[in-house]
Amino acid sequence: MGVLSEGLTHVLILVASLVGIGFALLQWFLVSKVRVSVESGNGYSDRLIGEEEEGVDNLDVSLKCAEIQNAISVGLFLQWKRLFSSGATSFLYTEYRYLCIFMGVFGAIIFLFLGSVQGFSTKSEPCTYSKGNLCKPALANAIFSTIAFLLGALTSVLSGFLGMKIATYANARTTLQARKGVGKAFITAFRSGAVMGFLLSANGLLVLYVSINLFKLYYGDDWEGLYESITGYGLGGSSMALFGRVGGGIYTKAADVGADLVGKVERNIPEDDPRNPAVIADNVGDNVGDIAGMGSDLFGSYAESSCAALFVASISQFGVVHDYTAMSYPLIISAMGIVVCLITTLFATDLFEIKNVSEIEPSLKRQLVISTILMTAGIAMVSFLALPSEFTLYDFGTDKLVKNWHLFFCVSIGLWAGLVIGFTTEYYTSNAYSPVQDVADSCRTGAATNVIFGLALGYKSVIIPIFSIAIAIYVSFSMAAMYGIAMAALGMLSTISTGLAIDAYGPISDNAGGIAEMAGMSHKIRERTDALDAAGNTTAAIGKGFAIGSAALVSLALFGAFVSRAGIKAVDVLTPKVFIGLIVGAMLPYWFSAMTMKSVGSAALKMVEEVRRQFNTIPGLMEGRAKPDYTNCVKISTDASLREMIPPGALVMLTPLIAGTFFGVETLAGVLAGSLVSGVQVAISASNTGGAWDNAKKYIEAGASEHAKSLGPKGSDPHKAAVIGDTIGDPLKDTSGPSLNILIKLMAVESLVFAPFFAAHGGLLFKLL
Amino acid sequence: MGVLSEGLTHVLILVASLVGIGFALLQWFLVSKVRVSVESGNGYSDRLIGEEEEGVDNLDVSLKCAEIQNAISVGLFLQWKRLFSSGATSFLYTEYRYLCIFMGVFGAIIFLFLGSVQGFSTKSEPCTYSKGNLCKPALANAIFSTIAFLLGALTSVLSGFLGMKIATYANARTTLQARKGVGKAFITAFRSGAVMGFLLSANGLLVLYVSINLFKLYYGDDWEGLYESITGYGLGGSSMALFGRVGGGIYTKAADVGADLVGKVERNIPEDDPRNPAVIADNVGDNVGDIAGMGSDLFGSYAESSCAALFVASISQFGVVHDYTAMSYPLIISAMGIVVCLITTLFATDLFEIKNVSEIEPSLKRQLVISTILMTAGIAMVSFLALPSEFTLYDFGTDKLVKNWHLFFCVSIGLWAGLVIGFTTEYYTSNAYSPVQDVADSCRTGAATNVIFGLALGYKSVIIPIFSIAIAIYVSFSMAAMYGIAMAALGMLSTISTGLAIDAYGPISDNAGGIAEMAGMSHKIRERTDALDAAGNTTAAIGKGFAIGSAALVSLALFGAFVSRAGIKAVDVLTPKVFIGLIVGAMLPYWFSAMTMKSVGSAALKMVEEVRRQFNTIPGLMEGRAKPDYTNCVKISTDASLREMIPPGALVMLTPLIAGTFFGVETLAGVLAGSLVSGVQVAISASNTGGAWDNAKKYIEAGASEHAKSLGPKGSDPHKAAVIGDTIGDPLKDTSGPSLNILIKLMAVESLVFAPFFAAHGGLLFKLL
Repeated sequence: MGVLSEGLTHVLILVASLVGIGFALLQWFLVSKVRVSVESGNGYSDRLIGEEEEGVDNLDVSLKCAEIQNAISVGLFLQWKRLFSSGATSFLYTEYRYLCIFMGVFGAIIFLFLGSVQGFSTKSEPCTYSKGNLCKPALANAIFSTIAFLLGALTSVLSGFLGMKIATYANARTTLQARKGVGKAFITAFRSGAVMGFLLSANGLLVLYVSINLFKLYYGDDWEGLYESITGYGLGGSSMALFGRVGGGIYTKAADVGADLVGKVERNIPEDDPRNPAVIADNVGDNVGDIAGMGSDLFGSYAESSCAALFVASISQFGVVHDYTAMSYPLIISAMGIVVCLITTLFATDLFEIKNVSEIEPSLKRQLVISTILMTAGIAMVSFLALPSEFTLYDFGTDKLVKNWHLFFCVSIGLWAGLVIGFTTEYYTSNAYSPVQDVADSCRTGAATNVIFGLALGYKSVIIPIFSIAIAIYVSFSMAAMYGIAMAALGMLSTISTGLAIDAYGPISDNAGGIAEMAGMSHKIRERTDALDAAGNTTAAIGKGFAIGSAALVSLALFGAFVSRAGIKAVDVLTPKVFIGLIVGAMLPYWFSAMTMKSVGSAALKMVEEVRRQFNTIPGLMEGRAKPDYTNCVKISTDASLREMIPPGALVMLTPLIAGTFFGVETLAGVLAGSLVSGVQVAISASNTGGAWDNAKKYIEAGASEHAKSLGPKGSDPHKAAVIGDTIGDPLKDTSGPSLNILIKLMAVESLVFAPFFAAHGGLLFKLL
Repeated sequence: MGVLSEGLTHVLILVASLVGIGFALLQWFLVSKVRVSVESGNGYSDRLIGEEEEGVDNLDVSLKCAEIQNAISVGLFLQWKRLFSSGATSFLYTEYRYLCIFMGVFGAIIFLFLGSVQGFSTKSEPCTYSKGNLCKPALANAIFSTIAFLLGALTSVLSGFLGMKIATYANARTTLQARKGVGKAFITAFRSGAVMGFLLSANGLLVLYVSINLFKLYYGDDWEGLYESITGYGLGGSSMALFGRVGGGIYTKAADVGADLVGKVERNIPEDDPRNPAVIADNVGDNVGDIAGMGSDLFGSYAESSCAALFVASISQFGVVHDYTAMSYPLIISAMGIVVCLITTLFATDLFEIKNVSEIEPSLKRQLVISTILMTAGIAMVSFLALPSEFTLYDFGTDKLVKNWHLFFCVSIGLWAGLVIGFTTEYYTSNAYSPVQDVADSCRTGAATNVIFGLALGYKSVIIPIFSIAIAIYVSFSMAAMYGIAMAALGMLSTISTGLAIDAYGPISDNAGGIAEMAGMSHKIRERTDALDAAGNTTAAIGKGFAIGSAALVSLALFGAFVSRAGIKAVDVLTPKVFIGLIVGAMLPYWFSAMTMKSVGSAALKMVEEVRRQFNTIPGLMEGRAKPDYTNCVKISTDASLREMIPPGALVMLTPLIAGTFFGVETLAGVLAGSLVSGVQVAISASNTGGAWDNAKKYIEAGASEHAKSLGPKGSDPHKAAVIGDTIGDPLKDTSGPSLNILIKLMAVESLVFAPFFAAHGGLLFKLL
């Protein structure tokens, strides 16, 4: 047994999650101190007034600020608030119904499939792993899996919603603070990101902890059943993330591409110009995709890796001898992560001060390095206190002898692999380095060479992350089998609070810049928000790298858990059943990407038509004398995201069910392995290609070096070529790329949840042949 | 035993291959009847004169024709003739040395690695599979594998060279025949393609047959050693194909992209305009990439699938009981293929006549259908005559009982899967169907949406081919284990003569059109060659589909043979060694594509600079009063292709050696499986995306429907957007996409050849740890 007692384990986890929530609320409070007085009056009623006005800006600007924030809120609410508010339009009800229907139907499917494993019998059954003992009936697993699924889904939606809430709360405040200096604006944006990060990680931990302990009231000593049903939590989290990422990605990029194609290319007006009818949809989209989507994506990864680790542990020594502290090792690691990230945050908000725009990016990157170093110590502490010095883990039918320092290495290598992936992503997507500069240079000869170079860059950027993942997998796999992989994934996600804070900071700064532009604020203010935004672009790319890297590890862990649960002893590529699964699985990311990219393309075409129509039919719009109809564009994005997320969603949700039911667990195992090894490549290359094009364009626009100046200025031929690349990259980096994370994770966790059913009744087709 | 006697088997194979060669020579003779008189005189000495001049064209045109053919020949010779001719420039010697050095070095590596397996002992050893018997020493295998490697390499180079010879011989003749009517031109181009197709397949079969029988003089009854060393033939074939595909792909696309970017986009002059300095390099490139590259690629697949099947058979019952006829089943299938394709060809050249341009494409597609139907009957005949009614096959350590009709199904399903893949490719790349029309339509909103839709189309086009391959694999794998897969691959390739004839027809027609354009021939003639060319585009896409589909099956067969030879009993994804191989293997196609695309991009940039320089510095060039310096552009392409093919070549050739030597056979098996399942997706999507963009552009240019007219004409904004897409697609469809075939095949065959070494001395790193 480890040093830590069971009671202390309870206290630690509870306290850490409550401290995390408290810290998030504190940050929210500090952001809210940026005084904004709200006066009711005219149609656009809210009004923001900064504490001290700096020089030239007059009341008119504040009024405009308020009006824009109002429109953004309306858009956001159209997309998301439906889940919580009543009295919205009939359209909102439709969307609300969508997710409710999905949760209801899928919950019912879980219940029916799992309940049917033992014919809905209410009798206790012999356990699958701890032979000789009696376990709860399969029907109980069906019920509790369904409950866990619903809890996971709700927590995920809550995480996304809260993130958006704080993001839209903070963006105009960041703009106002930018008037007082870049340091203040930075802190406001960063604190807001931290609210998101800490709320998400602490909430996720708390709900999981509480669920386990409530479920335990029924399950008692049947930990096998308990932790099997808790995997539904991961499924719920990830299935909502699917809709967040796909729907959000389609929403934001339809708006972005549509706005750019008409605004920048045809009408030659700047980004975020309020004359562009799609500008609000575009800004709303940043939050929908990058905040809510990313939030639920990482929440899903976090929930899934925890569930995978817990499941494997429950059928290992920890579960058999009922060592609660060792069993809770994944949760304690997460609790430690919250504490470490809390300390790390203070470095950005209190211990150092940003005085110059050039300090922003280093400060954000320092956050990653600090949290990684501190966390390594934290992992060591937890590993030596919570784990026995030696124990056995389930390893596909055999028991593997493991020492506690093995686990320390597993978690740490995941953590550090994440850092390597993050910095590699930065190297390939930041315009401070040669890869993006080469892409920018290729714009000299037009859009075609820009695209060729950009695609090549994306392909190349896959190499180092894959080697990092491979090394992490090899080490943790060799040391602690599938449990090691799950813990490596959790290690990568242990600093999730900091990672998300940095990530959410990006869209907040982006929106702040948008508001400054739309409100026509002075050049100085815009320069500051642009600097915040530029750093945010890089951190967004780093965040995507993390998300993909952790998704790869999580999927492998879930895959291992699925194989264990399905009773497969080996997944041999040299059997036809497995191989056809492998090759078809490797194809799924392409099918999925084809759907999502085409959806963005079609929605963008509609957006373009609407924006053109407004420019052509609203007199005085180009001259700024008339207001465009923002809500129409918001509606187009919302409709498209609702309608178009169904086919890719169905592909992901149905594939495991079809493969498992008709072709059996071996083929399904092949599908999971194939989609994992293929999807991770497509995802990384798509994200980085898109990020590189974006920053190549920004490089030319900023004109910070002689080389960059020779390509610019805005409106030059190379710049036009760069804008085309940027537009192509939009769906790659914000829709199809990041959605693939969910594809590989969700199929794996779904397979795990349904494993008992597939093992009992699967493979119908082969049985018939 | 089957019905067919050993003596008759010898006669059949020999006669079929000699008939194939004779038929090819007959076609060449028929093409040569298009009279061309050569007169020596001025600097551009060759002169082509058609038998009968039609109307307006005067002697000047004939002179121009000759001059252009001369320049094309010069370019081709620069690139390829070095292998056979002396007295070329010092540069040619360099290139010659390149391939010679490679063959020498790699031959030495094969010898040293395989010789070291038993420490260069000259003593006979106990056999690996037929326990109890004595087999020839490992040193003999080293020597004969090296010889087989060199034979394969030389045959591959010869195939490519002969293909180019006939292609450049035929293109101007096709142009001349176009004056007399589309039917005559079609027959000339098609006969020339048939020369290539039959020479290649018959040569490949003959050399393989002769080698086996010569090797047998030494090996005697040691068939295990005999067929193990013969696998070197496949390695030789594929390694030359690598350089043909990669080098050829870079050559042709650097020229094409460079020519288009300046000519079409900047200077607004038509394609193939003789004022464009890169036009000759571009036309030369079509032959280098599409004829020589495709030829050696398919030759490689053919050689490899034969070798894989022979190897598996040699360690099965056929080899153990020395049933020569059954052993030669793969060769007899190929012999039957030659006969079937010969009959099929008569349908195009003699039985039907093309009277109208609309009949061209159906006629070509009919070739595929006829050959497939006839071949199915042929397979049935061979299977029932050559095979015993029941026998056992090696199945990873066990013996699998198989019936002869099982083999009929294996070969046939490969054949028909090829047809399905071919027609699917056509659907996604021909502008007669909605997918390409949708892409063309998206050009309305600019290049960005065109690229997004095109990429989505490519991703989507993967679905049906993958399902076809998966079904073919499942059926043949289940029925006859790895031998079944190899035979399915050979089934897909059994109609290779017809496939290659159709495929080589494309670039010949393309060049014919180029010559018509450059020679300023009348509008009517150009319309005819354009129609030939358009059909050629579709068949080129079909050919690529075949090449990729067969590569996937071949690689799997080689993979299986490698695993058998390396003594692995299972490739379990759930072991860390295999999994890291799998994920790194899945990454290799991306790394490889990054290299090749960047190479094309860089070379194209150089080409653009040169072409711009010539337009800017040569007075009167734009007005047609001065001649551009074609050879400089040819040199840029040649230099680039030479220099840039080394890194991707090294990646492919070194990966199996490094993985096998340092990480061992399990990891290498993972790498092969990963690169196979991932590479096939990248290859198909890249090829089809590029093909779709090409034909979307042609759709707008042709303006054949109301919809197409609304997007055109040439020079309109949608057309400009389409040209950008076409340019991006060039390296995708002609460089990185098709080269991936070689990547997956070559790594597999190399692993197979080196398997004895890896099994004996591999996995150094893990042994140390």
